[in-house]
Amino acid sequence: MKKTADIHRELLESHERIKPFIHHTPIYTSTQIDLLCDGKLFFKCENFQRAGAYKMRGALNAMMLLEDDKKSKGVVTHSSGNFAQALALAAKSLEIKAYIVMPENAPIVKKQAVKTYGGIIIESGPDISDREKTAEKIQQKTGATFIHPSNDYNVILGQATTSIELLEQVPNLDYIVGPVGGGGLIAGACLAAGHLGYNCKVIGVEPENVDDAYRSLLSGKIEYNTSTNTIADGLKTHLGDLNFPIIKKNIERIITVTEAEIIEAMKLIWERMKLVVEPSSAVALAGVLQQKDLFQNRKIGILISGGNVDLKNLPF
Amino acid sequence: MKKTADIHRELLESHERIKPFIHHTPIYTSTQIDLLCDGKLFFKCENFQRAGAYKMRGALNAMMLLEDDKKSKGVVTHSSGNFAQALALAAKSLEIKAYIVMPENAPIVKKQAVKTYGGIIIESGPDISDREKTAEKIQQKTGATFIHPSNDYNVILGQATTSIELLEQVPNLDYIVGPVGGGGLIAGACLAAGHLGYNCKVIGVEPENVDDAYRSLLSGKIEYNTSTNTIADGLKTHLGDLNFPIIKKNIERIITVTEAEIIEAMKLIWERMKLVVEPSSAVALAGVLQQKDLFQNRKIGILISGGNVDLKNLPF
Repeated sequence: MKKTADIHRELLESHERIKPFIHHTPIYTSTQIDLLCDGKLFFKCENFQRAGAYKMRGALNAMMLLEDDKKSKGVVTHSSGNFAQALALAAKSLEIKAYIVMPENAPIVKKQAVKTYGGIIIESGPDISDREKTAEKIQQKTGATFIHPSNDYNVILGQATTSIELLEQVPNLDYIVGPVGGGGLIAGACLAAGHLGYNCKVIGVEPENVDDAYRSLLSGKIEYNTSTNTIADGLKTHLGDLNFPIIKKNIERIITVTEAEIIEAMKLIWERMKLVVEPSSAVALAGVLQQKDLFQNRKIGILISGGNVDLKNLPF
Repeated sequence: MKKTADIHRELLESHERIKPFIHHTPIYTSTQIDLLCDGKLFFKCENFQRAGAYKMRGALNAMMLLEDDKKSKGVVTHSSGNFAQALALAAKSLEIKAYIVMPENAPIVKKQAVKTYGGIIIESGPDISDREKTAEKIQQKTGATFIHPSNDYNVILGQATTSIELLEQVPNLDYIVGPVGGGGLIAGACLAAGHLGYNCKVIGVEPENVDDAYRSLLSGKIEYNTSTNTIADGLKTHLGDLNFPIIKKNIERIITVTEAEIIEAMKLIWERMKLVVEPSSAVALAGVLQQKDLFQNRKIGILISGGNVDLKNLPF
C-alpha cells in the first residue's frame, strides 16, 4: 500500500508535469442556481479544457511517464468518446504517435476530431471485445503502449489535477461532487480531496439507469450494467480494479439521478450559466439539486467534465 | 459638438459609475477558429454579463445619471428582448421602480425573466406604435422617465464600457467587430475605439435581411427595414438620431452576412468554444469569416453581445 506522503508528492508532481500542456480552467458561479439549492456552488469548467474535456489531463500524465523507448513506439487506446480525442491531442502535443481504435459505427464528427488532432484511427467491430482485440493487435504489431481511459494509476493522477486546481481556486470546500463513469475522474477527486483538501468530502453522481458504481459500493465488488440507456453517454462504463479501491476507501456516497433530472440540470447550466456542457457533466448538479438537505449552506465544487455535445441531438 | 476631452472623460466616468453593478466579463480565444480566419480573435463574452447581455451596462448608466426626484418616480421602457430584462435587473440593483411595456404575445419565458428581476410588466398590443403609446401613458401616469434601449446618449456611453474593457484586456487591437441592431453597442464601440484605442477600427456586421444600417451609411440618412426575417432577433431594429451620427463619423464599414453564415458561426462558437451565445452575437464572427482578406494577421476583438436563447428553438 502506498504511503500518504508518496501519494501527496505524486499528485503535486503530476500537476507540475502536465501544466505546460493544459488550460488552467476557470471556476464559474451562478447566484440563481445557488438559490435553487441553498448552497454555494463552484463549477470547475473542464468543458473549456483542451479537446473539450478533463480527459486530456490523464492522457498527458500517463504518456509523459513512459520511458523514452516506449514513447518512440507510440500509444494505443480504444474509445469512441472524449478519451479518443484527448489521447490524440495529448500525443500531438508530445510528438508521440497515437493509435485510436474506434468502432466502425462511431459518429463521423468524433472520427474527424481525432483526425484533426493527428490521431491514427483503426476501425474495429462495434463490440467491446472487438475493440480490445484490435487494440491488442496494434500493440503486438507496433509495440505501442496501451493506455486505459480510466483504470490506469497515472491517468487517475492526471484526472486528480482537476480537483487539485479546484481546491486551490476555492479554499475550504465542503464537498467535491462529480460524475461517475469509468471512475477515473472521481478516483482522482478522492485522492486530491483526501491528500490536499481540508475535510473536503467527495460525492459521486450516476444516472439511475447505469448505477453500477452505486451497486459496487453496496456489494463491495465491481458491478456491471446490463443496459446502458442514458443520455449521459460518458457514464456508461464500469469501474476498474485500480480505481475501485480508491473510490471505495474515500468516497462519502453515490447519488443516483433520473434522466429527467439530468436534462433539467443541463438546461439550467446552458440557460442560466451560458455554458455548453455534456449531459454527463450535468449529472453532478442534478445530484446536488436532488439532495438539497445534504448540501444546504455548504461550499460545493462541481466537476464539469466536458462540453463535447452533438448539437443536432439535444434533449431540449 | 462635444469636445474630444469631454467624451474621453464621460467614457471613463461611465465605466467607474457602473463597475460596482456589472461583471467584468472574460475574454475567450479559440486556436481552431483563429486558424479558420488566419487572424487572432478575442471574444468579449457579454453572454456572461448579468441578465445575460451587455444591455445591463447602458441601463445602469442611464439610470444612475437621473436626478434623485426622477429616480424616485422610476423608469419605463418598451422591449420584448434583452433590454427589458436588463432594465429590470439594473433597476432592482439601484432600488428604482421599472415599468416594462411588453407585447401581449411576448414569450412567457421573457416575461418570467423580467418578473424574476422585479420588473413591473405592462402589456400592450404587438405593434411598435401600441408599445410606444402604452409607454407614454405610463410616463404621464407615474412620472417615470422613459429610457430608450439604444438611442440615448447615456445608454450609448454605458454600452461603450464593453469596448473600454476589451481595449484594456487586449492591448493593440486592430479591429473591434460587433453586431448592429439599434446601434447602441456599435456606437459605444466607435466612441471607445476612437477615444481610447490606438488606431483601432470599428466594423459593424448585420444580417443581409435587415441591412438598414448598411443602407443608412450609403444614403447618409436613417433607413428602415421593410421585412425582418432573420434568426438574429436582436438586430431587427433600426438606428436612431443620436447614435447614427456617431456611427457615421467613426465606423470603418458594415459587412452584411447571410442567415446560413450566421448559423454556421453560431455553431462554431457553441461547438468549439463551449459558449452559449445568441444568433445576434454570432453575426460578428460570421462577418470576419466572410471577409478573411481584411482580417488576415490582425488582432480582432469580437463583441459577444449576449447568451439569451430559446433552447427549444435552436437552428442546428
